[in-house]
Amino acid sequence: MWTTTAITKKIGIKFPIIQAPMAGGATTPELVAAVSNAGGLGSLGAGYMAAQEIRTAIIRIRELTDKPFSVNLFIPEKYHATLTQINQMCHWVEQSCPELNTKINPVIAPYAPEFDNQMSVILEEKVPVFSFTFGILNGNWIEKLKNKGVFLIGTATTLTEARLLLEHQIDAVVAQGSESGGHRGTFIGKTEDALFGVETLVRHLLENVKIPVIAAGGIMDAKGIVSALALGAEAVQMGTAFLNCHESGINSSYKDALLSAMQDNTILTRVFSGKMARGLKNKFIERMQHYQDDILDYPIQNALTRSMRKEAEKQGNVDFMSMWAGQSVYLSKACSAAELIKKLTNDVNVLLKKIK
Amino acid sequence: MWTTTAITKKIGIKFPIIQAPMAGGATTPELVAAVSNAGGLGSLGAGYMAAQEIRTAIIRIRELTDKPFSVNLFIPEKYHATLTQINQMCHWVEQSCPELNTKINPVIAPYAPEFDNQMSVILEEKVPVFSFTFGILNGNWIEKLKNKGVFLIGTATTLTEARLLLEHQIDAVVAQGSESGGHRGTFIGKTEDALFGVETLVRHLLENVKIPVIAAGGIMDAKGIVSALALGAEAVQMGTAFLNCHESGINSSYKDALLSAMQDNTILTRVFSGKMARGLKNKFIERMQHYQDDILDYPIQNALTRSMRKEAEKQGNVDFMSMWAGQSVYLSKACSAAELIKKLTNDVNVLLKKIK
Repeated sequence: MWTTTAITKKIGIKFPIIQAPMAGGATTPELVAAVSNAGGLGSLGAGYMAAQEIRTAIIRIRELTDKPFSVNLFIPEKYHATLTQINQMCHWVEQSCPELNTKINPVIAPYAPEFDNQMSVILEEKVPVFSFTFGILNGNWIEKLKNKGVFLIGTATTLTEARLLLEHQIDAVVAQGSESGGHRGTFIGKTEDALFGVETLVRHLLENVKIPVIAAGGIMDAKGIVSALALGAEAVQMGTAFLNCHESGINSSYKDALLSAMQDNTILTRVFSGKMARGLKNKFIERMQHYQDDILDYPIQNALTRSMRKEAEKQGNVDFMSMWAGQSVYLSKACSAAELIKKLTNDVNVLLKKIK
Repeated sequence: MWTTTAITKKIGIKFPIIQAPMAGGATTPELVAAVSNAGGLGSLGAGYMAAQEIRTAIIRIRELTDKPFSVNLFIPEKYHATLTQINQMCHWVEQSCPELNTKINPVIAPYAPEFDNQMSVILEEKVPVFSFTFGILNGNWIEKLKNKGVFLIGTATTLTEARLLLEHQIDAVVAQGSESGGHRGTFIGKTEDALFGVETLVRHLLENVKIPVIAAGGIMDAKGIVSALALGAEAVQMGTAFLNCHESGINSSYKDALLSAMQDNTILTRVFSGKMARGLKNKFIERMQHYQDDILDYPIQNALTRSMRKEAEKQGNVDFMSMWAGQSVYLSKACSAAELIKKLTNDVNVLLKKIK
């Protein structure tokens, strides 16, 4: 049975379908729990959440489901910017969004939630699955989580990164293909040099490292799932497909933009967060192309554009929101998480019967 | 039978395997003919060849095979550079390769062979298959070739480009995935925005335009072929896989570099030709990163680095050669074209038996 893989057995889920942990509001406790209740693995994208918010969300998820779920965090990286650089970028961002009629304030540290505080909650709450991206989790945390029986999932965009995750005894790796929406997980070398299509990347990993691989990138339907599992992946991770679920927390203008998106509508950009991410093209991305070389390091750039993004969301103005989406966004459909998983699994069964 | 597709029937070849037309020396008449004799479609990459050279090569191919073969040309594009810009780039290139102990001369037009002269030979010689990249063939040429019964293949990196090819009644389209080695065929919008993994791109095209699709990018073995055909592609086009064939005209140090290449060894760069292309990383690419913004338009940059590349080839110095290769280069094997096609087709049969 296609539903029985090393991952479904180890985590204790019915289907090898993981809802991607999308930070920034999409992965409400309601979405996470609905996915897990439907037999997939729901994931909370907690990268931007402060420790207490994470704890509240986990408690809420547990009220809604008794099935396994996952929480994801961002591994912190080094960053630097002078005050002059920050002020300059602030000026450019403000110039780029006069339509919003809002003021961009130069940000001050901390630019992101304190990682160790976030991790303490993960450990204390003993989440069933912990996943991370942008780097490798520190050895102390790995040991502590393993002692509590937490299943660990890392993210790799190249074979080199996957090898490193294996060396650190991470349980499984998400092979993040270049099709993926949202932030690139690349943490060794340049992001531009680590753009492998999901199929190629999954093969690179499977043929070279003994680690369960979760295929991610452009997978939105049964064809994508069957193709990934046929290559040898133990599960798929799907993000964009879940963005339009009723339980997803993104705002309605973003949902509408996804539903009407065409095939060539996504782009890789650093302008929103300082880190390369794939999303729907819009006015802000286009205007900020001129300042490419001066985009600040993540998470400074991210903190600096936050008030603009929040204001744009409030106004329902898609020109200045970050609307992360993968390259198969054109397959977007609005439904509940349970309906989506039911449709996916039914379609996979039909497709497999056809092949056999 | 997997060997019977709309493309194999129309062109009259035994297997749906096209050897990619790689300009720059790889596709000798011997390679082209060997592939066609083995049941695939051999292709002459004639983009850099003057009209008379193309004619000589076609005559030689016909001496070596009576099977169908293909010739490929580059659709000319607009370009511009001031003398100051050319002199500046000339200086930088020279600074970047002191090890070669050679002088780079500022180039003067023409930077590339005259396209209409090239096309006249294609028409006069009535080649069985004509393929093109970097744009759309002019309507007059399309009409003339169609009147002679020439099968036409265009190249697309996005759905928008494929739609345009269909409007121009091109017979089939190569879906050039981002994994592909060599030049990107993108001709609408920015190359960076047109990087789709082959699987995603093939699906985009098949689900939206009624045109036979040839899958290209990272396909080096039976798994790649079966995967592409399963998605609905009518054939695969493979380049890197043929580079190490005994009949391939690339120099031996380039062949050795391919054989020892690892998964993360390729990069997309404009430094050699002015047009984005994927190849093995080397010293020249790394050093020229500093001058990214000043890389000249294709074909000026290409003409300007030519003497350096030729000298590097002569010296067997891989630091300054353009060594185009796709992302699955690590699967490279040295053998004859006939052996490669035999192995591929046998492996496909074994794999299909296993699946069924």
